[in-house]
Amino acid sequence: MTYVRNAWYVAGWTHELETDKPFAITILKERIVIWRTGSGTIHALEDRCVHRLAPLSLGRCEGERLRCMYHGLLFDPDGRVAEMPGQQKIPPDAKVRCYPVVERHSWLWVWMGNPELADQALIPPAVGLDHLDYILGHGHLDYEAEARLINDNLLDFSHLTFVHANSFGPGPQFAESPARITPLDRGIRYERWTENTRGASSRKSAGPMDSFMTYDFLIPGVLLMTGGVFPLGTAKELDYGAPDYSRAVSGVTFTSQAVTPMADRTARYFFSWGPHRSHGDEVLRDMLMSIADRAFGEDKIMIEAQQKVIDMTPDPQVMPSAHDRGVTLFNRLVGKLAKQE
Amino acid sequence: MTYVRNAWYVAGWTHELETDKPFAITILKERIVIWRTGSGTIHALEDRCVHRLAPLSLGRCEGERLRCMYHGLLFDPDGRVAEMPGQQKIPPDAKVRCYPVVERHSWLWVWMGNPELADQALIPPAVGLDHLDYILGHGHLDYEAEARLINDNLLDFSHLTFVHANSFGPGPQFAESPARITPLDRGIRYERWTENTRGASSRKSAGPMDSFMTYDFLIPGVLLMTGGVFPLGTAKELDYGAPDYSRAVSGVTFTSQAVTPMADRTARYFFSWGPHRSHGDEVLRDMLMSIADRAFGEDKIMIEAQQKVIDMTPDPQVMPSAHDRGVTLFNRLVGKLAKQE
Amino acid sequence: MTYVRNAWYVAGWTHELETDKPFAITILKERIVIWRTGSGTIHALEDRCVHRLAPLSLGRCEGERLRCMYHGLLFDPDGRVAEMPGQQKIPPDAKVRCYPVVERHSWLWVWMGNPELADQALIPPAVGLDHLDYILGHGHLDYEAEARLINDNLLDFSHLTFVHANSFGPGPQFAESPARITPLDRGIRYERWTENTRGASSRKSAGPMDSFMTYDFLIPGVLLMTGGVFPLGTAKELDYGAPDYSRAVSGVTFTSQAVTPMADRTARYFFSWGPHRSHGDEVLRDMLMSIADRAFGEDKIMIEAQQKVIDMTPDPQVMPSAHDRGVTLFNRLVGKLAKQE
Repeated sequence: MTYVRNAWYVAGWTHELETDKPFAITILKERIVIWRTGSGTIHALEDRCVHRLAPLSLGRCEGERLRCMYHGLLFDPDGRVAEMPGQQKIPPDAKVRCYPVVERHSWLWVWMGNPELADQALIPPAVGLDHLDYILGHGHLDYEAEARLINDNLLDFSHLTFVHANSFGPGPQFAESPARITPLDRGIRYERWTENTRGASSRKSAGPMDSFMTYDFLIPGVLLMTGGVFPLGTAKELDYGAPDYSRAVSGVTFTSQAVTPMADRTARYFFSWGPHRSHGDEVLRDMLMSIADRAFGEDKIMIEAQQKVIDMTPDPQVMPSAHDRGVTLFNRLVGKLAKQE
Repeated sequence: MTYVRNAWYVAGWTHELETDKPFAITILKERIVIWRTGSGTIHALEDRCVHRLAPLSLGRCEGERLRCMYHGLLFDPDGRVAEMPGQQKIPPDAKVRCYPVVERHSWLWVWMGNPELADQALIPPAVGLDHLDYILGHGHLDYEAEARLINDNLLDFSHLTFVHANSFGPGPQFAESPARITPLDRGIRYERWTENTRGASSRKSAGPMDSFMTYDFLIPGVLLMTGGVFPLGTAKELDYGAPDYSRAVSGVTFTSQAVTPMADRTARYFFSWGPHRSHGDEVLRDMLMSIADRAFGEDKIMIEAQQKVIDMTPDPQVMPSAHDRGVTLFNRLVGKLAKQE
Repeated sequence: MTYVRNAWYVAGWTHELETDKPFAITILKERIVIWRTGSGTIHALEDRCVHRLAPLSLGRCEGERLRCMYHGLLFDPDGRVAEMPGQQKIPPDAKVRCYPVVERHSWLWVWMGNPELADQALIPPAVGLDHLDYILGHGHLDYEAEARLINDNLLDFSHLTFVHANSFGPGPQFAESPARITPLDRGIRYERWTENTRGASSRKSAGPMDSFMTYDFLIPGVLLMTGGVFPLGTAKELDYGAPDYSRAVSGVTFTSQAVTPMADRTARYFFSWGPHRSHGDEVLRDMLMSIADRAFGEDKIMIEAQQKVIDMTPDPQVMPSAHDRGVTLFNRLVGKLAKQE
């Protein structure tokens, strides 16, 4: 697994973190315990007691502190041991790792690298569930596959024509036409006009239109996508540039998706999706989410099967295709940043 | 695992392969996809897309071709990539391995070795479900054990007295008396007369008879067995040679069995059994199959337990017995042929 | 796994070993078959046939002998092969390992080391279910963790305050006060007075008392514990020495517990507990057992989680606390004895 460590990883939905209930998650093979105290503060520590390696996530919240419930060591939120029952002197190295953690855009973000470099400006600008402009559904899926395979899937949308023939169903011309891929500082931008279309099979429009979609795929593995349907001719008129969404006729939606590598063969995939308030309501959101549930299940079947084939293949090699430019650019960026670390 | 590669392996029952429904099986740790087209032709390819290693068995049949449903690469039945969506030029090495595949005797046979050596004359002469002389039931079992252990079991029928005391139940004298074992070009022949017997506990005859059974066990792991009950004295009269089945009084049956190594600790075991039309009907066939189901379950319990013991044993060693001549001859043949490859 | 081999390991409850029903257990990664014959004798052999490594525990008892039910080899209780069907001569090395086995204190004890050193005087003096003084309940639990972690748990009772806050519930002062730990030839002795207490939350006494508990933890992993409640002032009066149980006011109980290492990550934990006849009855025993069932489930959750953390930790290190004296002494003893072997 090559992943960038100096990055914010999504650890969960903030509304699922209950006060004084420690929550355990593994990110990049490191066990982390996250908890929210009565004061509303959120802390994240290495989930492993210094004494005998019991998980702190089985522990008890006491004010801002967390007590290991095996032999009672009490941890300050910075990871230092504050109490060892039956013992006056606490060794100076009695300390577990503390992770920077932030709640934003409805997600818990954990910084896995050097804490001194934890810059909140690097948190990808996802759209939170409380955003005023969008009506969003949400969920998550656990994968028995490494995160990189899910990233690769999200970096090449030509799979929609095949994997999602029965859900999103964008039709064969989608896989034939190229997308515009632009490198970003910490990711890539994907833009695609589909001209003279009546839309995906799941959401047909009355007459032919021009349809636009764009997403940024950002380190460590966050997809932020929007799009909409525009009057026929808009694509040509804009010379295939990005449109002004106020001109959209229909279909403006936003989806935030995040892929979190847990261990070598496990990952958690978080997602939200829904219409702009001017283009839909709760009913449309629920309809979109039921399509998404089906489609994300299709991805999971394909990617977990792909993982199994890879694991049975001695010296597995891929053969990049024309659509792999996004995959290649992003993985090269990951490699470069990981190497710099 | 030492196995002969230049051999036909049973991959399934032909009647279970539906038109345009790709079927996945692993043989000798290689993933293979097999499909039958609308024209009735059967194809077998490596089950792994050249692009990103997705399994082709999740793909879609299109005429004689198979399309990977991850990013849409289309494969000719010889394994060459015919289309890559969004791309004009296809790399010359865009090709997966193609396996010779034949349907015969109700089984799908896949040649795992050098395709140029795939000689259909080497397909063992099993008795198919549609054979005019026999009324056959059939089935298969998956083992959590390596195929060699199942072969070994089938190469030493003295286990019938013990493993099958409550099903086939041939009695203790069966394990005491020797069989005649003869080497064949690609296997061994096993022949055994039991004189003056009223038969196995499951199928007693009215008076004492001579009972004969013989099987060939052939590369890569196919057992073809017949036998019958003859008038008392037949064995001596023939000097213990093979009898003419038209002289059989009763009990002439045929069983075809095939052991297919999947991975290091998995195998699939295919079987059919039933009476000759002159010696039984559908009722007898069903009775025989219910005995077989019980007996093959007994084998599975013993062999999977044996596998677990072997896996817990550092440097496991066997101590061959007098009954192991068939096992020894066959495994020596496998070793010799595998070495020649 | 470092364990002492020259020791008696608990293999099961004697009353659960039925006549002529072979019982399989793995101890120290060795598969063992134990059976009781019609004469009442108990035998223990390596659970692996010399012929093809089938488990003898799937075998059939015949008098004092055990027959492998794969190909029928018959074993004498000393491990020698007495019969090989179809074969006159039996190789002199046709023999499996024989283990000394004894039933005592309601447990089956197997000696895992050099049989010549199997001294029954080394069997820890547990209290059997048929003991005249105690009314005992019993049970066992299987762990997905190595036995050493369970031993460590039993060697440091400060965990009671935390792991068992909701079951035994001895309160925080328990974890603060030190126990007296004394080395024994083959274990350690743990003694603890709690003065001026109304007892654990689960069994409050009417007024303040002095409470005493003591256990020996003996090679290979056997805990034998008693205790009781005494008049206030007894601890001081005895200068914190061991009391005379006839002076106990209430609460005299006995528990025997044994930890048997099966494989690297599995162990079986046997236990009994109950009141002295002068201090309780079947109703109290059942009440104690329902507390124990809850408490031992709490241990299992913690220890199996600890094992998972350890397995995910590269180079796991512990940081001993003041309460770890018993753990350290015992593990040092194990290391010393194992090295001598």
